[in-house]
Amino acid sequence: MRDSSGWLEHSGPDSDVVLSCRARLARNVAGFPFVCKASPAQRTELMSLARRAILDSHLEETMLWVELNQATPRDRKLLVERHLISSQLAEGDAPRAVAVSGNESLSVMVNEEDHLRIQVLMAGSQIQGAFARVNEVDEALDQRLEFAFSQRYGYVTACPTNVGTGLRLSVMVHLPALKLTGEIERLRRASKELHLAVRGYFGEGSESVGDFYQISNQVTLGQTEEQLLSEFRDQIVPQLIEYERASRTVLRERRERLLDDRVFRALGLLQNVRLLGLDEAMKLLSRVRLGAHTGRITGIEAGAIDRLLPQIQAAHLQQIAGAQLGAEELKEARADLVRRTLA
Amino acid sequence: MRDSSGWLEHSGPDSDVVLSCRARLARNVAGFPFVCKASPAQRTELMSLARRAILDSHLEETMLWVELNQATPRDRKLLVERHLISSQLAEGDAPRAVAVSGNESLSVMVNEEDHLRIQVLMAGSQIQGAFARVNEVDEALDQRLEFAFSQRYGYVTACPTNVGTGLRLSVMVHLPALKLTGEIERLRRASKELHLAVRGYFGEGSESVGDFYQISNQVTLGQTEEQLLSEFRDQIVPQLIEYERASRTVLRERRERLLDDRVFRALGLLQNVRLLGLDEAMKLLSRVRLGAHTGRITGIEAGAIDRLLPQIQAAHLQQIAGAQLGAEELKEARADLVRRTLA
Repeated sequence: MRDSSGWLEHSGPDSDVVLSCRARLARNVAGFPFVCKASPAQRTELMSLARRAILDSHLEETMLWVELNQATPRDRKLLVERHLISSQLAEGDAPRAVAVSGNESLSVMVNEEDHLRIQVLMAGSQIQGAFARVNEVDEALDQRLEFAFSQRYGYVTACPTNVGTGLRLSVMVHLPALKLTGEIERLRRASKELHLAVRGYFGEGSESVGDFYQISNQVTLGQTEEQLLSEFRDQIVPQLIEYERASRTVLRERRERLLDDRVFRALGLLQNVRLLGLDEAMKLLSRVRLGAHTGRITGIEAGAIDRLLPQIQAAHLQQIAGAQLGAEELKEARADLVRRTLA
Repeated sequence: MRDSSGWLEHSGPDSDVVLSCRARLARNVAGFPFVCKASPAQRTELMSLARRAILDSHLEETMLWVELNQATPRDRKLLVERHLISSQLAEGDAPRAVAVSGNESLSVMVNEEDHLRIQVLMAGSQIQGAFARVNEVDEALDQRLEFAFSQRYGYVTACPTNVGTGLRLSVMVHLPALKLTGEIERLRRASKELHLAVRGYFGEGSESVGDFYQISNQVTLGQTEEQLLSEFRDQIVPQLIEYERASRTVLRERRERLLDDRVFRALGLLQNVRLLGLDEAMKLLSRVRLGAHTGRITGIEAGAIDRLLPQIQAAHLQQIAGAQLGAEELKEARADLVRRTLA
């Protein structure tokens, strides 16, 4: 696998708050049972149908096809750490695959919960672009695969929460100021009322670490794709950005000493650690990122911090080391990487 | 008060482990009730007797006489922070005083628990020297004051734990390696068996902060001064030094990564903090001191750390600022002082 990718390593619009955004469609092929009910033979057949459709569609200049049963555990883990496949897909044992574009912006999981999960990831706040692109891919594949569709409910999916549009929009946001000022709890309550799911950096089932939150819509039924998009793009994301920025301004103008203490402590630690766990790394990088984006820390480019976020995870560290690493060795490798990057 | 002193700011022998040592004698003047039973008039009379005796003895080139009722609260606190008087003497309201030599090595408290508490403080492990000096002072004062003495028990003191020789020997030791390796608990148990009192940096009633321990004899009765001295000088202190050094060698040779992590994290924090509490400061300075004495940190002189230990305390910070400081301002002033000193 290439060591660099577009969306993960470059900044997009509003990247002070929004690290990345994602549009995902759940699709199932008519005439096949859902993945959980399908026989190995049916799964294999579906995989080969999907492979042909994806490759024949020439969706991107290069598309990599990875059958996960043939991938090493470390490569599967790498795909998870780069947000290209879910843990669920990595850990299964049935026939399953992912198609990934060369710039890692597009990925299509095959035989995850649904037959196809088409996702487009983009740096920063480009939800409109991600939505447009995922629809293009959907239409292209629709030429070659018949997707299960009900006139009454819309797209049929394995889990009822995806029925309808099958569309999920999400943003990975960085809200350190709302956390420091304690306003994050108010936001959590508001998210609940708006039927938004709030997850951590590591996705489904993960707690927020280092003030990174993945925020996505939960309802896919009863709204058109355009309604969902417009709510997300025009209301939810701009408001998140506005709240966080306002909170950063308050910190900078009224609690400069506290802000500097938190930000420079984190930088001082990261420039000196010799042993570093993942959670602590995320927490400290979050603080340094806040420092870079509020202009308190100069000389460290915010992008350098964003590039570290995937790299400090286990499979990435092992890939860099070219070796399997034990728990203590991971802490050492993580500390060395971060220390040298921020030196 | 002068801003520098001999024993507090210079290193003595074995200063990698022993910051300072102290010999103290408790004495009472015959014909006067103990301080707790004395009337204000008797205390005042005693104070004037003591003053004359001390000043007429020409114990040191300069001797400062401070009547604590006339001192400001901050000056009283400064004397405590420099280990020249006890908190008990600082906080009393009866007539009481202290005589302090110009280099702050000798101090004589008047009307503390006993009529006189004569103490000699020296840098590093010079317990023999401190003992010799406190005895000279005792003999000189004995020419001018009649000390209460019982043929059976020895020197009579207000508290039975001081009866006999009235001598207390103590060392302020720095045991960060024994703490890191967990051996400190074994040492605590051994100290108990040897009837040694283990206190923190701030003396009586204080918990150990930052791995600094004040270790002193508890028994003064049934042993001659020479027996006490020889046990302390030839056994207890050398063993403490040996244990701690052995533990540092183990860390350096077998757990270098852990040692460096702890030491450089502390340095990284102290070079970047903007708000700093006293306990955290002691803890981090302790780690940096370990780093300097094990050769892991170069470019920071261990003496600079030792000089910070009194300076980061409240009254010292207020003296430096020339103003009364609130709790938050103290944290700011402490952070600024430490950050600049270790920059």
